[in-house]
Amino acid sequence: MRALIPFDASNPKTRLSPLLSAAERDSIARLLLQDVLSAIEDTPLEPEIVSTASISASVPVTVDDRPLDPVVNEAIEDGTPLVVLMADLGLLEGEQVQALLKTPGDLVIAPGRGGGTNALVIRDGTFRVDYHGVSFRDHLRLAEREGLSVSVVDSFRIATDVDEPEDLIEVLLHGRGEAAGWLTEAGFHIETTGGRPSIERTG
Amino acid sequence: MRALIPFDASNPKTRLSPLLSAAERDSIARLLLQDVLSAIEDTPLEPEIVSTASISASVPVTVDDRPLDPVVNEAIEDGTPLVVLMADLGLLEGEQVQALLKTPGDLVIAPGRGGGTNALVIRDGTFRVDYHGVSFRDHLRLAEREGLSVSVVDSFRIATDVDEPEDLIEVLLHGRGEAAGWLTEAGFHIETTGGRPSIERTG
Repeated sequence: MRALIPFDASNPKTRLSPLLSAAERDSIARLLLQDVLSAIEDTPLEPEIVSTASISASVPVTVDDRPLDPVVNEAIEDGTPLVVLMADLGLLEGEQVQALLKTPGDLVIAPGRGGGTNALVIRDGTFRVDYHGVSFRDHLRLAEREGLSVSVVDSFRIATDVDEPEDLIEVLLHGRGEAAGWLTEAGFHIETTGGRPSIERTG
Repeated sequence: MRALIPFDASNPKTRLSPLLSAAERDSIARLLLQDVLSAIEDTPLEPEIVSTASISASVPVTVDDRPLDPVVNEAIEDGTPLVVLMADLGLLEGEQVQALLKTPGDLVIAPGRGGGTNALVIRDGTFRVDYHGVSFRDHLRLAEREGLSVSVVDSFRIATDVDEPEDLIEVLLHGRGEAAGWLTEAGFHIETTGGRPSIERTG
């Protein structure tokens, strides 16, 4: 089964700017992508990266600078089933990918924190994505309108995409991939002196 | 099996002050507690609330104003197995409680966002809790030191405790209980005019 992984190669992860330079944000974005690819590795999924600009990767890359919706919808028209995974799921592991694949439904959806859609399994070619706004809610409504059967997957590891500085706490604590290793190497650690955990950098 | 639900009855949910009055924070805290009790209802768990002050509830309430750690540790000494659930898990449903109970291990732990521990199943009386700081990491280390077998449960619904204004987005989107209903009644809804979803109040 095809797995589409959209990747923003131009100035990624701007909300991490308080902690990381542009080059570092570029690094962490690519390592998160690498971690998503690793999670897929021992599954039947055949990953394809759709990137806004040319990048080197161990799997096929298509460069397409259109917005996310037409890119994904064109892939759905090309043929389902199709899996769509966000490229910044720093906690994703094979177990969650397998759980998505074995969940029945015309549409299998796993929410991201804040109303997003972090993983989709699309088994019906009439479905269309709309990643703007509260996409989780919109995707449920779109599926309902088409009369599709929908399953929701409950996973903290899928729900945690890496956008904000505090998301790095989750990667440091629960991540077992390249991004987590890079953060530790770069001097990031969790401080609890103020009571609530926060991310700090030494060195 | 006993299920301990610690409840802070005095000035709860202070971090929701930008959105809610003291009386409203009191209301939402009690409704979240009610939703946790509802999630337990059709499970073999026998809930006990340990509250910092007297509250009325449909299940036994013990008033104990000591910090959380000695309260829970005393309950562990009284006898295991024991389940400890946070009182502000606004997305918790029976399915997640059943998943906790059927997961093997001397210690079953489900993380909360930000390093917390939102659910514990303690099946070995030598374990002790330490809810300060990065409690998820600390609990893993404590279990390892005692040579206990540990399972980690991956659940977005368990990981989402309600502390910050943006956590209310999750309750509005994914909650199906009393707290979600109250928020809607109170005029809260999700706005996406700025691009990213935010919580707003009308009326």
